[in-house]
Amino acid sequence: MKIQLLLTGNELMSGHTIDSNSAMIAEFLSGKGYSIHRKVTVGDEPLELLADMKRLCESGDILIMNGGLGPTLDDLTAQLLSDLTGKPLVENPIARRHLEDWCERRKSPLNNSNLKQAFLPEGVEIIPNPTGSAVGFTMVYEDCLIICTPGVPSELRTMMEQTIVDTICKRHPNDQQIDTIRLQTFGLGESTLQEMVNHDYGEWPEQVELSFRAGIPLLEVKLIIHDLSHKVIQQRCYQRLHELIGDFIIGEESTTLAESVVKLLQNRQTTITTAESCTGGLIASAITEIAGASAVFEAGFVTYSNRMKQQLVGVSELTLKMYGAVSEEVVIAMTKGALERSGADYGIAVSGVAGPGGGSAEKPVGTVWMAWGHKDNLRTRRMTLTTDRKRFQQMVTAITLDLIRRELLSLEPQPTYYQALKKG
Amino acid sequence: MKIQLLLTGNELMSGHTIDSNSAMIAEFLSGKGYSIHRKVTVGDEPLELLADMKRLCESGDILIMNGGLGPTLDDLTAQLLSDLTGKPLVENPIARRHLEDWCERRKSPLNNSNLKQAFLPEGVEIIPNPTGSAVGFTMVYEDCLIICTPGVPSELRTMMEQTIVDTICKRHPNDQQIDTIRLQTFGLGESTLQEMVNHDYGEWPEQVELSFRAGIPLLEVKLIIHDLSHKVIQQRCYQRLHELIGDFIIGEESTTLAESVVKLLQNRQTTITTAESCTGGLIASAITEIAGASAVFEAGFVTYSNRMKQQLVGVSELTLKMYGAVSEEVVIAMTKGALERSGADYGIAVSGVAGPGGGSAEKPVGTVWMAWGHKDNLRTRRMTLTTDRKRFQQMVTAITLDLIRRELLSLEPQPTYYQALKKG
Repeated sequence: MKIQLLLTGNELMSGHTIDSNSAMIAEFLSGKGYSIHRKVTVGDEPLELLADMKRLCESGDILIMNGGLGPTLDDLTAQLLSDLTGKPLVENPIARRHLEDWCERRKSPLNNSNLKQAFLPEGVEIIPNPTGSAVGFTMVYEDCLIICTPGVPSELRTMMEQTIVDTICKRHPNDQQIDTIRLQTFGLGESTLQEMVNHDYGEWPEQVELSFRAGIPLLEVKLIIHDLSHKVIQQRCYQRLHELIGDFIIGEESTTLAESVVKLLQNRQTTITTAESCTGGLIASAITEIAGASAVFEAGFVTYSNRMKQQLVGVSELTLKMYGAVSEEVVIAMTKGALERSGADYGIAVSGVAGPGGGSAEKPVGTVWMAWGHKDNLRTRRMTLTTDRKRFQQMVTAITLDLIRRELLSLEPQPTYYQALKKG
Repeated sequence: MKIQLLLTGNELMSGHTIDSNSAMIAEFLSGKGYSIHRKVTVGDEPLELLADMKRLCESGDILIMNGGLGPTLDDLTAQLLSDLTGKPLVENPIARRHLEDWCERRKSPLNNSNLKQAFLPEGVEIIPNPTGSAVGFTMVYEDCLIICTPGVPSELRTMMEQTIVDTICKRHPNDQQIDTIRLQTFGLGESTLQEMVNHDYGEWPEQVELSFRAGIPLLEVKLIIHDLSHKVIQQRCYQRLHELIGDFIIGEESTTLAESVVKLLQNRQTTITTAESCTGGLIASAITEIAGASAVFEAGFVTYSNRMKQQLVGVSELTLKMYGAVSEEVVIAMTKGALERSGADYGIAVSGVAGPGGGSAEKPVGTVWMAWGHKDNLRTRRMTLTTDRKRFQQMVTAITLDLIRRELLSLEPQPTYYQALKKG
């Protein structure tokens, strides 16, 4: 059974939009053991679109189309499907009622742009859309089930959850036996990890597919089997990986660094605070993005200027003058001040040169001093991360969260963090 | 001239990775007036990949391949191109030297996984990669120029900048006359905007293509002409849009809300502070992500608990007890305290129920109180944003930044912000 995806919209071709919908669709399907064979993206060019629709219907069993259902003139999906299948566009009563309700809830009149969304190829099955104006729909052509979905991610998500996954499972019951263990790691490069595995294993068991995915900031490692009778070998590989690189494993599935830290703090019934200069609140926001953060996080300090480092977290003027804002002494003082004023048990402080300006020969752009740890046991580290401002802030946030994670787990506190990073 | 893209890698099909590379490639090309006709994504499935390579070479003039150049076993690009073109894989001396230098810089030995990256089809032209281990390369097949690039975004970016755009311009000099004006707007929906334009214009001039792209949180509006002699009409449309929806326009090109606010504050030589509860530092980090933020931002307060709302920004215990943490009185007190302690001129404070827990009948999940403005003129607003925790934090951040932007520009401070949002 072959599932293919066709994404439409000039915005996807122009470089101003990043497509997250196809990853979401794939994630829903992989949860049921289905995978996507091919994904084609074209602009709002009717002839190109039509040619791809035809080819993908002929070469696959299911075609999921995304985008092109909106109210504006460049939304072409319904018209082109009518051209392809020969079914005329007619006003669909369910779609019409949906649009009326949608406008009613918004206390706005049903305008002609919206009304266009009620005209669909004859005989389609409607997929409800509880939030947006565009309903989805399905139809069959050349024995291929075509599923049309809106481009708005939250609407697509609801349709996948409530309707589409079931529709696919019913039409093509799954007999695959895929099972995947996903591990999130931080601090090792892909080739280092592959070498460690090669070196340790000699021959990696062929029943278990080992796959990597370099994300920002985590590297995902997957152990995939295609036959459930291989579960024992998969478990053995999993154990062995834990022995090899356990310190670098943040968690399973889609665990993030912040999730892991919040969970560790919750389990220990302890709390953390942050004093941030160069990251400007990003560490605090990473922690508070996690549901339940309020149990472990009461306060964070964004002390961007020297004056505020003195006033909010009590760094002395003398320390700032003697060592400069980007220094070991200052991050220690920041951590101590934040710990004292918040009453937290653990603290993180960072001060660095995010760039693009502000660097010097001694402290070039990318230099950062970090302090972290329990109030009775603070550690520090200097690194140089040569990258752009935004990425620098993300990397510093990830590294400090990992340093706290290691502290909480009593692991080696000074891993190399990618051989590519220069150490200060 | 037809440019097509082929992206490879199981990680792109599994739903765990979002592809940002193709948007980057498109952005570079559109800067030179080129556009991408079609983008195909397939997993690491050799036969599917080979079929797509062949078809895209035959149907286009340029094929940009992305991914599959890494050191691991699932990186197949070089092997498949060798199969397709009949050119044997040979050790490329430039690639080999590059790998030696790369390992030397990292003080790590050249391992076999890395060495695999030096074996490329005979006769390719190398594209230098100043940072990563994988060089890029080009070759010609069926009169189509194949350009192979690595999957790591920063490496791809450097290659596009330094080599690839030039290579394409030389091979296919551009005679197109595309010109695009991009506007970023906040607070209007796509169909509302389309209706306003329809209503105002009757007939929108056909020489100017009007196109929308709904992002998070901004809606991009584009005015595209395909003939430079239509510049005057484009300018007229641009002026008219400014008259129609000027208050909602954040800026041109890729201006963000935070950029716009930082710039306005810089121009007025004035400063801002933040006191955040439910956004947990996200507003501060949005501001400090902008280069030059230090001129306008000295300090931010993340006061997540009631105790810290008292201690860090001086909210009284009585106010918290009488009105609750999510209240108009508390956000006013938070703003005043933050203004006083930071010495800033403008302030933002938010307190809300980000969820998933913590809601009540009176203040359900999604409720937020915001206070903002100049120290002599604070305003407040309650909204209910029914969405997930992360999106809630992003939306609150965007709305407060826009409220400050409007304050700085003396614009109507209480726009509806999407008809879909319930007002408190």
